[in-house]
Amino acid sequence: MSTSDAETSCDAFLGGRLVLEQPRRGYRAGVDPVLLAAAVPARAGQSVLELGCGVGCALFALATRVDGLDLTGVEVQDGYAALARANAVRNGLTARIHTADLADLPEPVRQRRFDHVVANPPYYAPRSGTPPRGADRATAHREDLPLARWIETGARRLAPKGLMTVIQRADRLADLLGAMAANLGSLAIRPLQPRTGRAASLVIVSGRKGGKTPLVLHPPVVMHDGASHGKDGEDYAPAIRAVLRDGAPLP
Amino acid sequence: MSTSDAETSCDAFLGGRLVLEQPRRGYRAGVDPVLLAAAVPARAGQSVLELGCGVGCALFALATRVDGLDLTGVEVQDGYAALARANAVRNGLTARIHTADLADLPEPVRQRRFDHVVANPPYYAPRSGTPPRGADRATAHREDLPLARWIETGARRLAPKGLMTVIQRADRLADLLGAMAANLGSLAIRPLQPRTGRAASLVIVSGRKGGKTPLVLHPPVVMHDGASHGKDGEDYAPAIRAVLRDGAPLP
Repeated sequence: MSTSDAETSCDAFLGGRLVLEQPRRGYRAGVDPVLLAAAVPARAGQSVLELGCGVGCALFALATRVDGLDLTGVEVQDGYAALARANAVRNGLTARIHTADLADLPEPVRQRRFDHVVANPPYYAPRSGTPPRGADRATAHREDLPLARWIETGARRLAPKGLMTVIQRADRLADLLGAMAANLGSLAIRPLQPRTGRAASLVIVSGRKGGKTPLVLHPPVVMHDGASHGKDGEDYAPAIRAVLRDGAPLP
Repeated sequence: MSTSDAETSCDAFLGGRLVLEQPRRGYRAGVDPVLLAAAVPARAGQSVLELGCGVGCALFALATRVDGLDLTGVEVQDGYAALARANAVRNGLTARIHTADLADLPEPVRQRRFDHVVANPPYYAPRSGTPPRGADRATAHREDLPLARWIETGARRLAPKGLMTVIQRADRLADLLGAMAANLGSLAIRPLQPRTGRAASLVIVSGRKGGKTPLVLHPPVVMHDGASHGKDGEDYAPAIRAVLRDGAPLP
């Protein structure tokens, strides 16, 4: 993938506090990685690994909210990994970005344990539905590795009591919970509902390594005000607007 | 278990439209089986099997709301099964109640397929937590069979496109979804939240035999009005009051 000016755009996140260069075509970071970052209760001094970090949106959104994090990202597509490295510099952040497949993590990552692992795995299982146009986009949207392997891989990289946090389509909750429960404890589910009274579109699920507390199904976070569909993006609920524009944590 | 007058009470459900004799001590039907019944979209002429029917609360609450159902219950404890048979007569209903273990269903049940299977399985896994007092109570609250076996057993008894509906503690959602996903499709989750802003205490999960539609995580049903704990049972939300007192379907 080329990263020439003509093929990328620089987009503002968190009210302009984070600027990310990303491809104009193919997978583009939007709201979801920012919501993921807002759900991670990281504290200064902790280490964070993102699996499949793309251009670094979730990792850098988290670092914009929480100072003093030790950031590592793994991304299989070299073009995205290169943009993530450039985006770290552009935003005054330090991060180790490895170009690597999750199934074959590089030695420096395999030798470490992290306080947090985060992931926004592809939303579509292999060979389901219509592939999005563009090869990079297909890789970012579509699983090469099953969701369960993302979770296993992340869980293995957690320090004891470390937390893995994942955002995923709500309709994959059964697969996601199964994988989380097989590897982690103290599971917590935060449904994201587009509007009041509607089914959840996304879920953010966290699990703790060695956690023993019972699963918690939290109340949904409602993304948009009003019961009917207006212009999405212009009618975010106040708590979501605070996440997206002010870099607030998810309530 | 004796069912002499001194040891049982007759309790009104659905605003008095359903009266159930049940033991004064041990497991007593309350709100949960009525909520379960209210979540089942049964229509006149359809067949319904309840696994672990106790004194028949869910089965008979459903039959009170929907006329013309063909009712079958299976209950392992003879005392409860006898009360279920008496309760059917008391309420002018016809039901086949079998005293049997789920792991060894009687021939008349094994030879049939049902449009609906419902279950309110024990809420506590074997040997977890403190056993409730009273042996019968322990059997009703606590699993002899793992939750997954309840789901497998129910799914096998469903006709093609038949629906299984289960109520369970929310903190067992991972186990429940895993078992449902392994045996059924078109899963739907309805969280039951005690109050606005609180985590779900219960979930009602349904799955369709041969169903192919994606999992749906519905918005929670909020049980009680107000954010703080008043006298439970006196401040039910209007939709829940309609379910419990008027026999309305769950919204």
